[in-house]
Amino acid sequence: MELKDQIEEKAQRATFAAKKLATLSVNSKNYALLVMADALEEHMEKILSANDQDLANGVVKKLGKPLLDRLMLDTIRIKAMAEGLRQTASLPDPIGEGLGSFCRPNGLEIQKVRVPLGVIGIIYEARPNVTVDAIGLCLKSGNTVLLRGGSEAIKSNMAIVDILTAAAYDAGIPVGSIEFIENTEHEAVNMMLKLNKYLDVIIPRGGAGLIRTVVENSTVPVIETGTGVCHTYIDESADLKMASEIALNAKVSRPAVCNSMETLLVHEKIADSFLPEMITALTAERVEVRGCEKTMKYNESIIRATEEDWSTEYGDLILSIKVVATIDEAIEHINQYNTKHSEAIITKDYNNARKFQKQVDAAAVYVNASTRFTDGFEFGFGAEIGISTQKLHARGPMGLEALTSIKYLICGDGQIR
Amino acid sequence: MELKDQIEEKAQRATFAAKKLATLSVNSKNYALLVMADALEEHMEKILSANDQDLANGVVKKLGKPLLDRLMLDTIRIKAMAEGLRQTASLPDPIGEGLGSFCRPNGLEIQKVRVPLGVIGIIYEARPNVTVDAIGLCLKSGNTVLLRGGSEAIKSNMAIVDILTAAAYDAGIPVGSIEFIENTEHEAVNMMLKLNKYLDVIIPRGGAGLIRTVVENSTVPVIETGTGVCHTYIDESADLKMASEIALNAKVSRPAVCNSMETLLVHEKIADSFLPEMITALTAERVEVRGCEKTMKYNESIIRATEEDWSTEYGDLILSIKVVATIDEAIEHINQYNTKHSEAIITKDYNNARKFQKQVDAAAVYVNASTRFTDGFEFGFGAEIGISTQKLHARGPMGLEALTSIKYLICGDGQIR
Repeated sequence: MELKDQIEEKAQRATFAAKKLATLSVNSKNYALLVMADALEEHMEKILSANDQDLANGVVKKLGKPLLDRLMLDTIRIKAMAEGLRQTASLPDPIGEGLGSFCRPNGLEIQKVRVPLGVIGIIYEARPNVTVDAIGLCLKSGNTVLLRGGSEAIKSNMAIVDILTAAAYDAGIPVGSIEFIENTEHEAVNMMLKLNKYLDVIIPRGGAGLIRTVVENSTVPVIETGTGVCHTYIDESADLKMASEIALNAKVSRPAVCNSMETLLVHEKIADSFLPEMITALTAERVEVRGCEKTMKYNESIIRATEEDWSTEYGDLILSIKVVATIDEAIEHINQYNTKHSEAIITKDYNNARKFQKQVDAAAVYVNASTRFTDGFEFGFGAEIGISTQKLHARGPMGLEALTSIKYLICGDGQIR
Repeated sequence: MELKDQIEEKAQRATFAAKKLATLSVNSKNYALLVMADALEEHMEKILSANDQDLANGVVKKLGKPLLDRLMLDTIRIKAMAEGLRQTASLPDPIGEGLGSFCRPNGLEIQKVRVPLGVIGIIYEARPNVTVDAIGLCLKSGNTVLLRGGSEAIKSNMAIVDILTAAAYDAGIPVGSIEFIENTEHEAVNMMLKLNKYLDVIIPRGGAGLIRTVVENSTVPVIETGTGVCHTYIDESADLKMASEIALNAKVSRPAVCNSMETLLVHEKIADSFLPEMITALTAERVEVRGCEKTMKYNESIIRATEEDWSTEYGDLILSIKVVATIDEAIEHINQYNTKHSEAIITKDYNNARKFQKQVDAAAVYVNASTRFTDGFEFGFGAEIGISTQKLHARGPMGLEALTSIKYLICGDGQIR
């Protein structure tokens, strides 16, 4: 069969299954999730040996260490994936939730209820845990899923999908609810992006390149996730000890993730008292500092930040620093260069805190806290399918609700218009 | 200046103005809307003479009568447009509404608030009233707007935009909040569809061709609106008098709009007692009936419905009829051919009513009422920017809330992760 037909057949099965899955009881879904979690742990050996093949291929392909680490599975990580499924089972069911009802003057009763989106396409890169998370969250929210993982983790992903589908279908989940595209050619992604007839949404999870490809080429609605050029602005009134702790945390605690800081903005009135120690602390953590002209005078090792630096998501131990004359200059800089993800102000000034939260355009705007908290678990959603950096449908950390739509149920007695 | 630069400059102005408009008080927005309504009525002559030019051009271009009617403005229609702006002013302000707040174990306080989307692109066809509606709803919801109307109404649209922008900017609305692309070449639409850097969403309003073009070519997120292949299913237990009144209303009250019926499904057990009279009533209203084999035997004038008929939005006095053996066959037919807009069942059976509402996949699912009620005003939203037929972001009639996003405001005391 042609690749196009293969993919379309999978999408068709997912669409067919979606009709049944949408009306499945929460008990049936939760039971399946628990069975699937057990299956992952029972068949650990199968996953580990598939993962060994991926790792061996990765070494041949000369993947970097961070990528190999993300790819690597061990018993602890597999147990964590199973635990994730159990947690998803314990979350409240979003489907069927009433979102209000109203009676119209003509007697029509209109009820707004939460329903699944239908079929969700997920295109992702290396990490095999995304396979498990996505399958669990889609199932819990009553959606079927068409997955397309990256070539690096293909063997691990296939082993995981085999185990989870067998367990799910055994537990009564409609066949076709979990579909996986095994072809790792770029062509398969392009075909998936045109499946408007079957897919209700595509969520890309991965680097900036993948996300750009999906946004630019998909005719299916997309939820853009993940790119984060996050700033921390140290106001002139900031508690400088708090400021340096937060800035350090935002940069070094996990530089590869999207909610970590890429640019530090510092009010010029406190630059002399704040920056020298801050730069020393960053350097001690092996952070490469790039800066504006004013920043450069604090340390001769600082490279001049270029226009490109201000809009770059380093995802690494690199930080650009800019000294600003006013809070307005800080806000303007942020609104020009940010990706609308997470931004923070460190301040003791009430008016500046309010101004910053009002005027900065981002999913999450912090006062006196690290941007690293933008995360479904930290927000208390119990799960996360990604962090939306667009404004349509979902913004910020996406939990189960982000995987739902609504439907109006109208009851009448013969009303005509 | 090149067309591309011209359009980009307009989008840039709208993006710049959006930052200011987003934080404008509701009083300022309402005041402007009232001033704009007055201005429309004061400058009626200017609009009417521009509209005369469009009508004259329309006659030369040999536009059909329905199109010319939609294009035509008179004092009554202009007053209605002004009244629409006043109604929009009287609606509650969606912006700033709190959508819940929660305190995390680490002391972080997270507040979810409603914010504008930012810049909304609207691409539409003939009717000049869309210009006024869109400007009013975008302004009220704190969004700036980039409009691109069709060539047929270009003079009317330009006159309206001139009057409304002058009044709005006089009333203190940030300059750039209302931008209109005067170029009517197709090229301008294509350029608009790639303005990801500036536009947060594009909403197409018009025929199926326009909507397809936008969905297939836009890299900006799109809200798909308007196509409606709506069904009415007459269950075996239906009150046949009610059934025929509803079916007739759904087909003939306004056949050109998206919530009117295109296919009638009839349970075989009541076909003999229902269809002959129904077909007579439809024919009396000059409806052309196409039908399945079973339907054809009730009247020799009935044309055989083809596969294409079942998925066609006639938008005209044409109806396809199918006799089905079970409610399940009806539901299956609907889920195969509908555009997920509005569907109705006429029944006295409690279980069938519930089954239909649960299993039919559409924005609005009716029991014992006409599909013609799917409309922002009929639903009591006080306004309508269109009817979404997708599941992402908004579904069904879209009022002011559909033009908003959310933002998380997080207050801390030095929390790090």
